[in-house]
Amino acid sequence: MSGPLAGVRVVDLTSVVVGPICTRSLADQGAEVVKVEPPGGDLLRNLAQGSRNAGMSGKFIQFNRNKRSVCLDLKRLEGMAAMRRLVEGADVFVSNIRPSALARLGLDHEALAAVNPRLIHCSILAFGSGGRYAERPAYDPIIQSLSGVAATFERATGEPRFVPMVMTDHITGLIAAQCIGFALYRRERTGIGEAVEVPMFENMASFVMSEHMSAATFDPPVGPTGDNRILSPEYRPMATKDGYITVGPNTNAQAFGFFDAIGRPEMRDDPRFCSASARTTNAAAYFRLRMEALRERTTAEWLEVLSARDIPCAHYNTLEDLMEDPHLADRGFFQAEDHPSEGRLRRTAVPNHFGGGRREEELHAPRLGEHTREVLRQAGYEDSEVDRLIEAGAAQEAAC
Amino acid sequence: MSGPLAGVRVVDLTSVVVGPICTRSLADQGAEVVKVEPPGGDLLRNLAQGSRNAGMSGKFIQFNRNKRSVCLDLKRLEGMAAMRRLVEGADVFVSNIRPSALARLGLDHEALAAVNPRLIHCSILAFGSGGRYAERPAYDPIIQSLSGVAATFERATGEPRFVPMVMTDHITGLIAAQCIGFALYRRERTGIGEAVEVPMFENMASFVMSEHMSAATFDPPVGPTGDNRILSPEYRPMATKDGYITVGPNTNAQAFGFFDAIGRPEMRDDPRFCSASARTTNAAAYFRLRMEALRERTTAEWLEVLSARDIPCAHYNTLEDLMEDPHLADRGFFQAEDHPSEGRLRRTAVPNHFGGGRREEELHAPRLGEHTREVLRQAGYEDSEVDRLIEAGAAQEAAC
Repeated sequence: MSGPLAGVRVVDLTSVVVGPICTRSLADQGAEVVKVEPPGGDLLRNLAQGSRNAGMSGKFIQFNRNKRSVCLDLKRLEGMAAMRRLVEGADVFVSNIRPSALARLGLDHEALAAVNPRLIHCSILAFGSGGRYAERPAYDPIIQSLSGVAATFERATGEPRFVPMVMTDHITGLIAAQCIGFALYRRERTGIGEAVEVPMFENMASFVMSEHMSAATFDPPVGPTGDNRILSPEYRPMATKDGYITVGPNTNAQAFGFFDAIGRPEMRDDPRFCSASARTTNAAAYFRLRMEALRERTTAEWLEVLSARDIPCAHYNTLEDLMEDPHLADRGFFQAEDHPSEGRLRRTAVPNHFGGGRREEELHAPRLGEHTREVLRQAGYEDSEVDRLIEAGAAQEAAC
Repeated sequence: MSGPLAGVRVVDLTSVVVGPICTRSLADQGAEVVKVEPPGGDLLRNLAQGSRNAGMSGKFIQFNRNKRSVCLDLKRLEGMAAMRRLVEGADVFVSNIRPSALARLGLDHEALAAVNPRLIHCSILAFGSGGRYAERPAYDPIIQSLSGVAATFERATGEPRFVPMVMTDHITGLIAAQCIGFALYRRERTGIGEAVEVPMFENMASFVMSEHMSAATFDPPVGPTGDNRILSPEYRPMATKDGYITVGPNTNAQAFGFFDAIGRPEMRDDPRFCSASARTTNAAAYFRLRMEALRERTTAEWLEVLSARDIPCAHYNTLEDLMEDPHLADRGFFQAEDHPSEGRLRRTAVPNHFGGGRREEELHAPRLGEHTREVLRQAGYEDSEVDRLIEAGAAQEAAC
């Protein structure tokens, strides 16, 4: 029993979040991920607060479990030679480097396919090639600003803002892992690798517009852009007598059950609320009806009444509540880990279960260059050669 | 040339968004997806505003391109028999039905693997099995309320709210497609299928906490939960003289270039701003500095000045702006489509490019039961048998 990607060797030249969540998704399911970092390391090692030791932020640890770290200076010829050696023996190469820079390094698909035709070469880009933004640098908020994510908040609240997560990085990275899985599947059938290009802006434009192109899907549009139900100012946890609750009475059965529960059974015959499409058209009124009713009882009272009728409902968790959530406790979601240099940690479980088996050995998030020697040895370097690389500054090793 | 999943047959018993975005991701890359719908159809057909004809909302169209629709009543024996026949010939079965209901229908992994051991059986669940919420119903806002998504807004703005997209559905669906890709890869190597379980709550708890467990990654915590930089109230597009701009000066080179651009070169020596980790610790002050400087010029002026220094920056797009974005135009992102029943539409391009080839034939989003006869014929039914199923009410066909 091992993970579905057991034996897949990934060379990971990515940083911050978009690439690291991609390769973590592969690593969590069994792939052998080698994270190649420059001297100084992945920016995320220091870009987030909360650490016991410099370069080992909590956020870096979360996104880089189950990987090994090799520190190479790609500006030096010997560092670049070591990098190429790693890629020659790999199944997958992932980067989030601009295409022109990748080509300058000789790490573009064409160059690497010549030595390793089975390689799957995944480029995560801010902007797809061929468009005018292609060479622009970007981080997550740049993409939130452009792709309509910030715009959904202006529609809902009057003011553009970002989702307080590096959401576009995170989502695009998950999609990149999806694409790599598809390419691995194809390679098993054809025997040859391919180049895969995963642009953040286009993926997020697709994400947002799949939800909110709405009436503008039609040409000419049959109404304004945007799903008015979800863009409603009231689309949020609603106040109860003592806190918050979220309810989702969407189908007729759920809506009519909800009307009964709040003592307004006549609403099922109200033309505004008698069908899913009527409730969608009258979303604002439906939200008001819920809001007025829900503040009359406590959260616990409502959860009991609504659950009994199988109406989707839930309490509201703060981040601290989430860490104590009883369902997650039942599932063993937050796990204790003893990290060799960072001490006792809390790790989240891999959420998805594969009946055919899971990754055998879990690895801790690596210190910068923790596996430089081990990985280079596996790639065929003698210990003395590794020593020379380190002396020349082309590689670095973590202190023991 | 065809997509990486060409030839993969998917039976899709999902609805709304979480399942449909999963199977659209498979379909866009070449899989043959058969969408099985009950009489009345997928709730999303009517749950969103904006349509030319009942049951064909813009939102449904977006999430269901490249699929064929079969309408079966699974409450009737003959409908259920047809369903099983489809699954027996499939590579992948995806549902977002609660496990107990799936078992009652005889569509659980154990039952289906007995007749089709190569089947990949993917269950998208609200809550993972074994935990106390496992049998609760849920929609996207329920998961946003529980998983910390809403909580990030309380941290940033003082009030819990939802991302105005069905974000947890959408992300979990993308992850489910990722998992199916991994399972398809393994099946090519082992010859046997497996059950895959993809729970929304656990996936979103992982998503949020990977970003925001932060200092609470350590046990005992070395500080509060949450990435203070991203939870800052000012984490949003910033006002210029005539609109908004977003900037991302994260590395030293970017930050120092930004200080030069705003005429404050001395800031590079300010202990609050001299390194990535100092700027992270002093995120609030760094945001204020940006905000005060940026309002002094127009968006276009800033974009010119900052781009010249390779500092990540972008304008802000409304949803309408996005549809006119010049980079997306260069890429041909919004495409014209002539739908046989819904007329002229705007369709978004598949964002990801596979060098080994793409899906050959694009399909329009189907009307309810548009392919009932065609699909049942391919599964071995005679025309007369399909007629009998329809007469008995076990299947439905779209009117021509």
